[in-house]
Amino acid sequence: MEKRITVAIDAMGGDNAPFEIVKGAVDATKELEVNIKLVGPQEVIEAELQKYTYDEAHIQVIHASEVIGTDESPTMAIRKKKDSSMVVGLNLVKNGDADGFVSAGSTGALLTGALFIIGRIEGVERPALATCLPTKDGFTFLVDSGANVDCKAKYLEQFAKMGAVYVENVFGIQNPTVALVNIGSEKEKGNALTKEAYDLLEATDLNFIGNVEPRDIPSAGPNVTVCDGFVGNIILKLSEGITMTLLKIIKKEITVGVYKIAAAMLKTPFRNIKKHFDADEVGGAPFIGLNALVVKAHGSSNAKAVKNAIRQCVSFSEADIVGKIRDKI
Amino acid sequence: MEKRITVAIDAMGGDNAPFEIVKGAVDATKELEVNIKLVGPQEVIEAELQKYTYDEAHIQVIHASEVIGTDESPTMAIRKKKDSSMVVGLNLVKNGDADGFVSAGSTGALLTGALFIIGRIEGVERPALATCLPTKDGFTFLVDSGANVDCKAKYLEQFAKMGAVYVENVFGIQNPTVALVNIGSEKEKGNALTKEAYDLLEATDLNFIGNVEPRDIPSAGPNVTVCDGFVGNIILKLSEGITMTLLKIIKKEITVGVYKIAAAMLKTPFRNIKKHFDADEVGGAPFIGLNALVVKAHGSSNAKAVKNAIRQCVSFSEADIVGKIRDKI
Repeated sequence: MEKRITVAIDAMGGDNAPFEIVKGAVDATKELEVNIKLVGPQEVIEAELQKYTYDEAHIQVIHASEVIGTDESPTMAIRKKKDSSMVVGLNLVKNGDADGFVSAGSTGALLTGALFIIGRIEGVERPALATCLPTKDGFTFLVDSGANVDCKAKYLEQFAKMGAVYVENVFGIQNPTVALVNIGSEKEKGNALTKEAYDLLEATDLNFIGNVEPRDIPSAGPNVTVCDGFVGNIILKLSEGITMTLLKIIKKEITVGVYKIAAAMLKTPFRNIKKHFDADEVGGAPFIGLNALVVKAHGSSNAKAVKNAIRQCVSFSEADIVGKIRDKI
Repeated sequence: MEKRITVAIDAMGGDNAPFEIVKGAVDATKELEVNIKLVGPQEVIEAELQKYTYDEAHIQVIHASEVIGTDESPTMAIRKKKDSSMVVGLNLVKNGDADGFVSAGSTGALLTGALFIIGRIEGVERPALATCLPTKDGFTFLVDSGANVDCKAKYLEQFAKMGAVYVENVFGIQNPTVALVNIGSEKEKGNALTKEAYDLLEATDLNFIGNVEPRDIPSAGPNVTVCDGFVGNIILKLSEGITMTLLKIIKKEITVGVYKIAAAMLKTPFRNIKKHFDADEVGGAPFIGLNALVVKAHGSSNAKAVKNAIRQCVSFSEADIVGKIRDKI
């Protein structure tokens, strides 16, 4: 008999909840070897589920009466809202009733809750948020992209190791290249943190290729890009900001006067370019270093993003990445 | 009689030296109230100068036999190459024979040399490199964009003050808005450095508008964007990298098959967009906090960039920014 992975989903998290979340979960059960536990108000979720045909053996509703908003204090929300979809979902994982958890809700609350409820893998100092940052020819796995704003060099070494295990096993990239974000390519460049981290990374058995300069990340990003969470979040958010602003400027410049016709002819290629930078293709940021996979899906996640986040949980569990990270650390 | 500002120029710095440097200097004497001292091998510079007609009263050649390469150790190069165009030029400023210095040569050597030869304004803890980063509707003055990779909160407070004085007096922006780069808009967000810097900035008489998130810098950048030099350099270089990569992807997608005609029709707007992100329009990064203005022009500077860098030196000296920064700090 097949062994299906069970993934718990925060049905109430994100801008498009519960509609897109439930749709993505239903789609996932059809494409993946997965059982889903949809967490949230029973009536609301069941009303959503009635819109679809699906195999009831693979979808279960777990009632949770509360919802954590994105504007709430993470620590307070996790502590007080014991019956929120997020806390109930994380507890399913903690108690062994699910193998992973996906939420498009508050990042802060999810990181806090996951850390306290699911807990770290033994030996991991700081779990990290990772993001697949689009590059010219694919993506680079950016660790840490926002969980730890003040880091020691040792944390960065662990981010690199966890990132390499993840991309090798979840995305199937053999012997992935790992590089350190720095403001120069030479070893001696950078600040106190990167200088120390460089030495530590050089001494590992990773495929460490040295520093990567920010200018080269979009065109020649390594498989795993390592930095502290403050810098990583800047890279992530600035990338989004520049891409969106530039596309807007282009649209404004080419949809006036005589250019309108040409612009109209180029709708398809521009749509493809936008799609290339579309976060939904990957489906969220894994929070790695915990005893199970927790995926932070984008707040604006659609069904496809949710399905792809679930796919990451399935690959993660099947490949026993917790065990592999424990061995590596 | 008019009082002309004197600017010393490293005629041998940058990829396009001496041709574009000398041309930019000649152009500057025609447009600005400035005397130029071109520093470098006399014969080489004089051969370049013969290509132009100019008023000899406004251009003087100062002989220097050596050139500092971009691959040399900054400290060693400044110490050993006493007769380099960079060291000779900085000494002109130190000895009162020039009011400012422009070089498109090695950034590291220029920062090191300027700090040791020209020296800091009394009270300034760390001079900072500032860059005009293009935004949707203009630019933001990014301080520090690469000189100080490890910073204390106090330095950031000074960067903000120096930046505000600069943009107010050189670019004529009254009561400029100042914001701190951070990974959240709320005061309590960020790392240890930004939290402490926020409190210091809030207590100044600057027009401090709080945190600016990286996502918003390209679309709604404040007049002065403050951060440590490691983060600033990442913002600067990543912005360039993404813009170039995105424009390349677009070009690749729209210059194939049926789209070729439409792409050809859009050459003019695309040229305008590229121009908008063109560093030459501003003409280099001022190194502020020293007893005179030193401008690091881009390595690939053309004549226009050199001329605009000279223009910054003129405005800087005329407005007595050294005095204004000393008062503010």
